[in-house]
Amino acid sequence: MSAGTGHASAAGADRRNVVAVAVTAIHGGAARTRRDLLAAEEPLEIRTVGPGQEPVAVAVTMRTPGHDFELAAGFLLTEGLLRAGDIATITYCQEPNEQRYNIVNVHTRVPLDLSAAERTFFTTSSCGICGKASLDAVAVRCDPLDPAGPVVGRATLLGLPDALRDRQRIFGRTGGLHAAGLFTTSGELTVMREDIGRHNAVDKVVGATVLAAGPPRGEVLLVSGRLSFEIVQKAAVAGIPLVCAISAPSSLAVQAAGELGVTAVGFLRPEGFNVYTHPQRIAAGA
Amino acid sequence: MSAGTGHASAAGADRRNVVAVAVTAIHGGAARTRRDLLAAEEPLEIRTVGPGQEPVAVAVTMRTPGHDFELAAGFLLTEGLLRAGDIATITYCQEPNEQRYNIVNVHTRVPLDLSAAERTFFTTSSCGICGKASLDAVAVRCDPLDPAGPVVGRATLLGLPDALRDRQRIFGRTGGLHAAGLFTTSGELTVMREDIGRHNAVDKVVGATVLAAGPPRGEVLLVSGRLSFEIVQKAAVAGIPLVCAISAPSSLAVQAAGELGVTAVGFLRPEGFNVYTHPQRIAAGA
Repeated sequence: MSAGTGHASAAGADRRNVVAVAVTAIHGGAARTRRDLLAAEEPLEIRTVGPGQEPVAVAVTMRTPGHDFELAAGFLLTEGLLRAGDIATITYCQEPNEQRYNIVNVHTRVPLDLSAAERTFFTTSSCGICGKASLDAVAVRCDPLDPAGPVVGRATLLGLPDALRDRQRIFGRTGGLHAAGLFTTSGELTVMREDIGRHNAVDKVVGATVLAAGPPRGEVLLVSGRLSFEIVQKAAVAGIPLVCAISAPSSLAVQAAGELGVTAVGFLRPEGFNVYTHPQRIAAGA
Repeated sequence: MSAGTGHASAAGADRRNVVAVAVTAIHGGAARTRRDLLAAEEPLEIRTVGPGQEPVAVAVTMRTPGHDFELAAGFLLTEGLLRAGDIATITYCQEPNEQRYNIVNVHTRVPLDLSAAERTFFTTSSCGICGKASLDAVAVRCDPLDPAGPVVGRATLLGLPDALRDRQRIFGRTGGLHAAGLFTTSGELTVMREDIGRHNAVDKVVGATVLAAGPPRGEVLLVSGRLSFEIVQKAAVAGIPLVCAISAPSSLAVQAAGELGVTAVGFLRPEGFNVYTHPQRIAAGA
């Protein structure tokens, strides 16, 4: 697919991911005013546009500007609203207004059925949304992954956190962002993205693999914080069989990983880690 | 107000905030299977029920069970959907079904105007949601706080993180939760709540102050992680003038705090902190 006319604009937006402000720093009884860099947070409205149709707003997310097209594509894919082949072009809002870089239009080759969007975002059902029902809803969009799948060595896993941290550029400047990285089973980092929202960082990684002409691929997703149900769900829909977190998983994340055939790893630190589901994908060696 | 017939059930739900699972722990080349405690994550559907009306589902949030009535009340209040005096009773779903503890009905004294809910959750407007428009929307629901407001001493602020951490019971057992605490200007912790969702922890704190017969009050909110736009917005609507975070604020959090008259403090650590807005509320002494 082509990313359309917005690519130059997207590159421009990348420069807006850090904002400078004045701050009063208090340290040891002394106060002084200095400049501080903050991670940018702005809302992004994601719209889909079918052939000959008007744009439909599907979601608004608070995100760190940059890689907006990847975020939109990854979000729509991992929420089960479209498949990679459905995307024709992606553009920023064409109407001249000051918020055009906070609105992304995803043009599709075919009209979309947004009933799934209504289920996910415009929730009005009575008892339909619950742990059980949500897991069932994922199963509709996503068959469980093959439990045989790829295998990664323990020593390789132990090296991933340092590799991710080395590439976290915005975090290093602001101390304020989540990161997600996609690795091969030999430990090569193929995509890293940062965002103020944990889910957004994952969506950007998945979107990057979808939008790339020669797809950067990987089988191991690492997130910098905790592992939630929604991140496991997104990984399963994207076909990523191993999901690791620096911190703890939630109960529903582990339950979902078990049912969806995803290997869930928590507390991944240099000295060890915990495997919660499908340990057959982790080998004792390198 | 009365919390209705659901109070005993709410206490029961509190015991579901930790879930035990089997885990394969890898450490120094050795693998052993043991029991691990995870922070529970389950969806909660929040409904409002006007006098003589059918329930209307307003939102679904992934949350850690426990203090569900506080979460529902705090959410509806801080999103500007109702005022504290509007609440008649709060109950779990009355229909017999396995998900009843994941559905909360907030019964109101008067019919609610949910057009604000549509704007917030069922977003279909075109260019209406953006940094500017969101801030304007808050200003409609919430006059900026009086910049004179209460004053807190530097030394008092420096002691808050330890006080919060000492009370984080679930985090201590699972390593997996956000916390929010409300303090008086003399540093007394009046309410602490934990949740897998950062916004939920704040909603539970605000809800606790709303539902308490003799209200626990405080002027300083401390959150365990980063400071987002939405947390500043919730604090402003709840009338809390000082908001502190252990980690970094986002750009939009600082912008919102400036416009809404909220003092925003970031990187609050034992050795110092940063003040981003309205520093007049912080005194040099204790």
